[in-house]
Amino acid sequence: MDAAPHAVSTFLFVLAGILLGAKLLGELAERIGQPAVLGELLAGVLLGSSALGLIPASGPTADVLAILAELGVLVLLFEIGLETDLREMRKVGASAMTVAAVGVVLPFLGGYLYWSHIPHGTESPDTLHAAAIFIGAALCATSVGITARVLSDLARLGSIEGRIIIGAAVIDDVLGLVILTVVSGIAAGGVVSPLVTGKIFAVAVGFLVVAIAVGGWVAPRMFRSVARMKVQHAVPVLALAICFALAALADRAGSALIMGAFAAGVILARTDQYHAIVERVRPVGALLTPIFFVSVGSALDIHLLDPTRPGGAKLLLVAFGLTVLAILGKVAAGFSVPWARFRRLAVGVGMVPRGEVGLIFADIGRRSGLLTDDAFSVVLLMVMGTTFVAPPLLKLLFRDHPPAPAAEQPA
Amino acid sequence: MDAAPHAVSTFLFVLAGILLGAKLLGELAERIGQPAVLGELLAGVLLGSSALGLIPASGPTADVLAILAELGVLVLLFEIGLETDLREMRKVGASAMTVAAVGVVLPFLGGYLYWSHIPHGTESPDTLHAAAIFIGAALCATSVGITARVLSDLARLGSIEGRIIIGAAVIDDVLGLVILTVVSGIAAGGVVSPLVTGKIFAVAVGFLVVAIAVGGWVAPRMFRSVARMKVQHAVPVLALAICFALAALADRAGSALIMGAFAAGVILARTDQYHAIVERVRPVGALLTPIFFVSVGSALDIHLLDPTRPGGAKLLLVAFGLTVLAILGKVAAGFSVPWARFRRLAVGVGMVPRGEVGLIFADIGRRSGLLTDDAFSVVLLMVMGTTFVAPPLLKLLFRDHPPAPAAEQPA
Repeated sequence: MDAAPHAVSTFLFVLAGILLGAKLLGELAERIGQPAVLGELLAGVLLGSSALGLIPASGPTADVLAILAELGVLVLLFEIGLETDLREMRKVGASAMTVAAVGVVLPFLGGYLYWSHIPHGTESPDTLHAAAIFIGAALCATSVGITARVLSDLARLGSIEGRIIIGAAVIDDVLGLVILTVVSGIAAGGVVSPLVTGKIFAVAVGFLVVAIAVGGWVAPRMFRSVARMKVQHAVPVLALAICFALAALADRAGSALIMGAFAAGVILARTDQYHAIVERVRPVGALLTPIFFVSVGSALDIHLLDPTRPGGAKLLLVAFGLTVLAILGKVAAGFSVPWARFRRLAVGVGMVPRGEVGLIFADIGRRSGLLTDDAFSVVLLMVMGTTFVAPPLLKLLFRDHPPAPAAEQPA
Repeated sequence: MDAAPHAVSTFLFVLAGILLGAKLLGELAERIGQPAVLGELLAGVLLGSSALGLIPASGPTADVLAILAELGVLVLLFEIGLETDLREMRKVGASAMTVAAVGVVLPFLGGYLYWSHIPHGTESPDTLHAAAIFIGAALCATSVGITARVLSDLARLGSIEGRIIIGAAVIDDVLGLVILTVVSGIAAGGVVSPLVTGKIFAVAVGFLVVAIAVGGWVAPRMFRSVARMKVQHAVPVLALAICFALAALADRAGSALIMGAFAAGVILARTDQYHAIVERVRPVGALLTPIFFVSVGSALDIHLLDPTRPGGAKLLLVAFGLTVLAILGKVAAGFSVPWARFRRLAVGVGMVPRGEVGLIFADIGRRSGLLTDDAFSVVLLMVMGTTFVAPPLLKLLFRDHPPAPAAEQPA
């Protein structure tokens, strides 16, 4: 029961520090006119193993924190799903799909060509091609978590731009799964056939469609019974159980965990217990989601930002170039829909943060040996750069426009 | 990031199953007039590794569940602390202390003498004395979690009986720490001096006194600033951060985790953000505390209940005797306060559940080799017996009496 003495209290100290840091730096960020999530990411950097060292990079505490962070992003996507009106979403479907597709193709090409042609000297010519594919892939991802949180902080989830961004980010996750499998195949030294690629794509899309169709029929009937249960807290607890179960099911079906959580939210938004679920799940999300953002921030090794270390200045320069490409590729995607009316720059910037998805790509590349430590650091800096630059820019872009009236979170 | 494929989704399936099982069997329990916590314990037995096998007994999923269960019991004790009025508590202080002391001495003597004298043949004469001390120690504990949850389900936390039980259970935790250290010393083959014993006692009591005195002065001032923070959810998240930090501090100071969480609740009850904290922490507790009760239930190996296995009938008989002693010792404690007026039987029964505290004693005894597997099973059955018998009895005893008007949880 208590095999490692003080293991639990160590974990509790770290958890308390994460929550305190998230709220204090979140408050600081808001006071200087920035979204709170920026402060949470910075709290992660400060508490991470390369700075104050409160958050360990590995070990039992790190393992439990990783699970809590995962629960945090799942509850966040569940809440996003709850706020998502499918009919409103369908209206922006074509726009979202175009933004997503262009926002995958352009950054991939940009990243691939950049890595193939600039003199960076981090790998041998043999692996250059594969490494460039990895770099390109890492540029494709969009972190729906970061952007959704910023839009939610700004009360803009229900705006037309908000819906296009969330729609495109969800589609990006489907495309990201396909790309992840292809690059994982390359990392394993093999070749992935178009047939396999197509199958992964079909499964990822199919899961979402089937889950929402079946769940959308079952859930309203089920929750009419749940609402009659005498035991306390049945509605929110069973809603979260469905969120976790669908996330796990999505993963097992070959889709992504967060797709299942998002689908669960979309499904439960159609029940007559919608308000009770939103109201009771929010405090749970308030506890868990900061753990996710602080964890993302803690992945940054601040020594990478030191230009005086050997090769440091060159690395920063290479990373800066890649970050600019990463931003331009996604911003350009915002301008790829000539037929619809929306704030194109805001949509483009909303797609910029790579967040945890970029980190996962980079991590697979490093563990397969295709990305050198320096190349991994460059990707990490790009991920952090895009993740940190988007929240203040979004805040700026949405400044002069009043929030949309419907489906907003209260302060 | 995803080292073990599907590790996260396996965990999520188990978590969803625990929440679903807790609510379904909790509902069933309420429908047949029993407290919901009984259903949650039964859900644990059913989902445990000896029955349906959804909840693993060890491995990464079990490790994370153990932490979530720990968070669950901490949030529960935090909530109990929030509901605790120290002035009301002081009024029953002498009664609670007497009930706690008698409820430790009588069961210890009963357990020790029983194990020393009945023919059970599970250990050699050399270790009989030490084993009997362990058995006696395991009979001393009171699970404040189980009883508090039942009283909360019945809306009786604020009654005079409720306050005596909670007070005595908290004191039992202090005494339990002292006993735990003494028996751990015996398990390690040493002798524990009265000086060391006294020091542990002083630290455990001292932590509670100092934490409540200092925190009670600091917290109201601090939360006036927290209430003015612009960042969302600052009040409940920082309240939980304080709960986790004080729990960790209690552990490091040589006291128990749950004492720190309880102290945090008592402290924050004095802030002007009391209602906001109670309101927002409750959904978090609703998610986490069932994980604790289901985990406690899952520790029972149902094969122990099979009288047809070799030695099974005798083991059950020995366990039955010990369980009766365990119940009688605590019930007698309820009658140990001649000067005060309260329902003595209800208080005595409220002290009966051994819950997780008894399991921790049994586990240390088994790992040290002083308790044989059979003796461990007997303790486990006693723990389960007392834990399962108390909720329905309490419900019965409180049936004819209306709930006290103050400090009750709404349904």
